[in-house]
Amino acid sequence: MTLTYTNSEQLFIGIDGGGSKCKAVIYAGNKILGEGLSGRANPLHGIQQTFTSMTQAVQLAAVNAELPTEALSQTIAGVGLAGVNLNKLKQQVEAWQHPFAQMFVTTDLHTACIGAHQGGDGAVIITGTGSCGYAHVGDKNLLIGGHGFGLGDKGSGAWLGQQAAAKALLALDGLAAETELCQLLFDYFEVSDAMGIVENLAGETSSHYAKLARYVLQAANDDEVANNIVTEGASYINDMARQLLSLNPPRFSMIGGLAEPLKPWLADDVIKQLKPAINSPEMGAVYYAQQQLLN
Amino acid sequence: MTLTYTNSEQLFIGIDGGGSKCKAVIYAGNKILGEGLSGRANPLHGIQQTFTSMTQAVQLAAVNAELPTEALSQTIAGVGLAGVNLNKLKQQVEAWQHPFAQMFVTTDLHTACIGAHQGGDGAVIITGTGSCGYAHVGDKNLLIGGHGFGLGDKGSGAWLGQQAAAKALLALDGLAAETELCQLLFDYFEVSDAMGIVENLAGETSSHYAKLARYVLQAANDDEVANNIVTEGASYINDMARQLLSLNPPRFSMIGGLAEPLKPWLADDVIKQLKPAINSPEMGAVYYAQQQLLN
Repeated sequence: MTLTYTNSEQLFIGIDGGGSKCKAVIYAGNKILGEGLSGRANPLHGIQQTFTSMTQAVQLAAVNAELPTEALSQTIAGVGLAGVNLNKLKQQVEAWQHPFAQMFVTTDLHTACIGAHQGGDGAVIITGTGSCGYAHVGDKNLLIGGHGFGLGDKGSGAWLGQQAAAKALLALDGLAAETELCQLLFDYFEVSDAMGIVENLAGETSSHYAKLARYVLQAANDDEVANNIVTEGASYINDMARQLLSLNPPRFSMIGGLAEPLKPWLADDVIKQLKPAINSPEMGAVYYAQQQLLN
Repeated sequence: MTLTYTNSEQLFIGIDGGGSKCKAVIYAGNKILGEGLSGRANPLHGIQQTFTSMTQAVQLAAVNAELPTEALSQTIAGVGLAGVNLNKLKQQVEAWQHPFAQMFVTTDLHTACIGAHQGGDGAVIITGTGSCGYAHVGDKNLLIGGHGFGLGDKGSGAWLGQQAAAKALLALDGLAAETELCQLLFDYFEVSDAMGIVENLAGETSSHYAKLARYVLQAANDDEVANNIVTEGASYINDMARQLLSLNPPRFSMIGGLAEPLKPWLADDVIKQLKPAINSPEMGAVYYAQQQLLN
């Protein structure tokens, strides 16, 4: 698909919301005028927090673009958010009294895919706080995973953290061999027993768990339990990639905070197909808004 | 340990809080005067809800005992709650402006164990919404599991439900073989795709997941995936039981909503040691309050 939006005066906003952060970009002609970054914007974990983060991100982007806040009312926004494949959440987001002239909402996967392949067909896997895969090839769409913390999201940052904690607690109960992973968690939380680990994790959000991921990945070179966790996560990402590649997408990219650190753990046939993402998810959200206007 | 509390005039309250319900009993002499039942009371999932449920349960018990609500101010309460092995939660519960003359708080495991063995030494495994094990033998205490939904609680109702949903979603993504379990979840939630399952479970509490458990147990006789889940859960409970039995407790019981349905899945050496619980966790809470007064 070639973008043919030609009105270089029109201001566009692209927003990428996620479990840990929200990014916004202001774009006109073929230039990024400003960018803004704020906190988590995952409607599954709080719709008001999502709106607050989106508002902060676009206001920061306006300041960065040296535009008055009132200019937002002239913008056309594309928004990519986790969870809006669920109808009830999509409706709640669309009912938002947004500050834009128009707003188009789709999944964060969709905008990430459009961004990575600069508006063209392709497939992406996102591994950050959560994990999921998406492909758009011709008239085919494929969505895999992205079911959220606790229901799937294997290989994601939150999953790596949660598995590490669960396996360490099993060992500390004497029901599995104790390895370095327990000490790693003690050090991280500055505690000395299982209760200390539980106290630091009980009831916490997926992004809180995801902070443990890079320590689990580091430990995986030496520690058998951490190695098993990362291998299982990578195996899921391999399965997901092969499923997406069965649609023969012209391009395939992996994005998100865990894409690079997980890469060495993936299978050769998957790594061979990887191409760098051309543009960001928030620019994908801009392309999405432009596509919707042209349709 | 023999109970020697002899003041037959003193009113005692025993409260057992849990992930799905809260039970209260009013006791004096050696008679139960009244009982009350209310909603979930797990401080890990909401401290205010816990206080509300406890208040409702004791008020209902007072009505059932034909006592005026004011009589509660004369009672001495024993309270068993999940999560109060975590210091911050125990402090929050103890800071509650409770309606009793005195209140003693301990874990739900501790009161369940005291109740099951009528004040004597022993070991218990509780498998309901969550799972955990506890033993008190001489001067030794052993606590296993009970880390909460997402961090452990294998073999529990919530874990069975969560595993079933996760495995079904994996199959519906084409990443595992699809079995009857998918249809079972479709029927249960009255939906027809993965999104419908996610929409019904995302962000829900452990007790919501636990409602799926009995369907998973039923399916486990015929369905390979359900069978693997239940076998893994039972294997964890076996490990936990053997760990507790290594302390040579004079009695060993399993209690909670899943104790009976899980029993056929346990190993023979574990089943052989099982004895029926003599009394309820809420009566255990009464014994606990009496023991604390005598100490």
